[in-house]
Amino acid sequence: MGLTIALDAMGGDGAPGVIVGGAELARIRYPGIEFMFYGDQEPIGALLGGYEKLRAVSMIHHTETVISGEDKPSAALRKGRGSSMGLAIDAVKRGEAAGLVSAGNTGALMAMAKLALRTLPGITRPAIATVLPTTVSECVMLDLGANIQCDDRNLVEFAIMGEVFARTVLGLPKPSIGLLNVGEEALKGHEAIRQAAATLREIDLPIEFHGFVEGDAVWAGAVDVVVTDGFTGNVALKTAEGIAKMYTSFMRKAYRSSVISRLGYLLSRGALNKVRLKVDPRRYNGAMLLGLNGIVIKSHGATDAFGFANAIGVAVDMADGGFNDLITQEFDHLGSFGAPVQKVASS
Amino acid sequence: MGLTIALDAMGGDGAPGVIVGGAELARIRYPGIEFMFYGDQEPIGALLGGYEKLRAVSMIHHTETVISGEDKPSAALRKGRGSSMGLAIDAVKRGEAAGLVSAGNTGALMAMAKLALRTLPGITRPAIATVLPTTVSECVMLDLGANIQCDDRNLVEFAIMGEVFARTVLGLPKPSIGLLNVGEEALKGHEAIRQAAATLREIDLPIEFHGFVEGDAVWAGAVDVVVTDGFTGNVALKTAEGIAKMYTSFMRKAYRSSVISRLGYLLSRGALNKVRLKVDPRRYNGAMLLGLNGIVIKSHGATDAFGFANAIGVAVDMADGGFNDLITQEFDHLGSFGAPVQKVASS
Repeated sequence: MGLTIALDAMGGDGAPGVIVGGAELARIRYPGIEFMFYGDQEPIGALLGGYEKLRAVSMIHHTETVISGEDKPSAALRKGRGSSMGLAIDAVKRGEAAGLVSAGNTGALMAMAKLALRTLPGITRPAIATVLPTTVSECVMLDLGANIQCDDRNLVEFAIMGEVFARTVLGLPKPSIGLLNVGEEALKGHEAIRQAAATLREIDLPIEFHGFVEGDAVWAGAVDVVVTDGFTGNVALKTAEGIAKMYTSFMRKAYRSSVISRLGYLLSRGALNKVRLKVDPRRYNGAMLLGLNGIVIKSHGATDAFGFANAIGVAVDMADGGFNDLITQEFDHLGSFGAPVQKVASS
Repeated sequence: MGLTIALDAMGGDGAPGVIVGGAELARIRYPGIEFMFYGDQEPIGALLGGYEKLRAVSMIHHTETVISGEDKPSAALRKGRGSSMGLAIDAVKRGEAAGLVSAGNTGALMAMAKLALRTLPGITRPAIATVLPTTVSECVMLDLGANIQCDDRNLVEFAIMGEVFARTVLGLPKPSIGLLNVGEEALKGHEAIRQAAATLREIDLPIEFHGFVEGDAVWAGAVDVVVTDGFTGNVALKTAEGIAKMYTSFMRKAYRSSVISRLGYLLSRGALNKVRLKVDPRRYNGAMLLGLNGIVIKSHGATDAFGFANAIGVAVDMADGGFNDLITQEFDHLGSFGAPVQKVASS
């Protein structure tokens, strides 16, 4: 393959150990991959000492500046250029790396990447996307928080980006697209969402537009791509996490409530582990900052090496699938797409 | 007690059987309760024939007009006055019933109830609220879909109504209020939500304002009252339902995957039933249309008699708790509340 991935070695709760451990797992999974580590040379070097083969395909670029989880995006923009995150972004900008992965501050990553890499031609605003499990398979959802308020043009862009992602990375030949709404009827929801639906129905792209999709249908697997504004997407994603935790807590207490159910737990453990694996957040780790002129992946800050390796995998898949070239082609082809959309007032 | 509850006997998938069955369960639970059934006299009468004690405390008001699940609110307003739903609303308006329960069309119920009953003094827009389970206890969430776009004034009204509900019906002496947002920091979210937070911090009411709350924290039980616009609330509620169904489906498949896990399931059944009971949607059935000058409860259309009885229970609790009188007192006391809020542009 020969892909090089830039890693912000200092972002996230377990840095740099989790980053180096994740890189080692990814190295085994993707033969030919190379890494550029950005961060504090000493601990990174010491960790790499434990992985001979990884060290052979890695370079360390030293910096002592780190963007913290508390830094506001504005502060990150001021001090960030020389930080581990900023240098990793620059490596992508200069074409030295095919993509970057950071488990650091999301707001800072988006702000710095947007400034340094710019958006792809035709894209007004980048979006945060992630792959999620559904009852029947999986889907990609965007935006998850980069854009709190969205007009119809933003939503249409998200739909196109999500469609290309599902095609190139999830390998679905004809992914279906749904707009998250409070009902399926054409009159439901607010102006921006209704206008986005109208545009997606008429647009000159071979897009499989399903229409509106409700919050419960998303998890039943009604569509392959779920498009929403960043406020709603963030609430939906965190609600899903919260409900999953609530159930886990209820189950744990229930299993402990009697000797019989403890025994039942022991016998069911294999089955329960299958469910756990199916919804393991580490499996779905690696949110994509789509729409940027470069591949930028945000890992969960609290993940482990297994989760971080999966985030690296997302960067590899996007680079291999030629995601950004395809996006650029689609928007090139659309050309006049701005016109019918922009005459409508945004919400 | 001597409370009279009006029932739309024709609303919902299982009407009128579920309605009559639910009334019988509620009759046993709330001694002294009386019912006014609105709908097709013949089947209702036949069903009541099976419950002697229920028949003794029930009156049937015949009508053949029914609002269907497909009727738009506008159509319901045109033809609805003589319908089972419309007549039940009128019974509350005339003071003949302390409240009404319908498992019919939500949009029609809200539109007709709003027109006939009007909102309470000080309330701009009614909201749909429901009680939901959390890891530690339960919470009330509103709005769940009545108001797709909300300004700060709407959100503040929802907060006050939710607080009074949690105090009078859930019996919490000092319920805490959270505004659903994408982060906890003061700068997160959009203008309406930030301004609502500012107002709730300054307001002259003994309200325990927690601040912003994220989608996952809701289910961890961070607050007793979760306030949001109807779009976000609807998506959050349906996401919660969808995730619960997804887990149930995964678990079922996993338990069936081997003989050992089947045995494990048998031994765990008691524990699993406890969890099921804890999150049983029938237990939480009965969404409140808060802010109307009358008690209006919407039952899920697909519930059974047990679920419908719980929706009747919500109407009884709200009437007993004097919910609407307290709301009126709070807004009376506030008086000047409109001023600081209305000077700010709504989103």
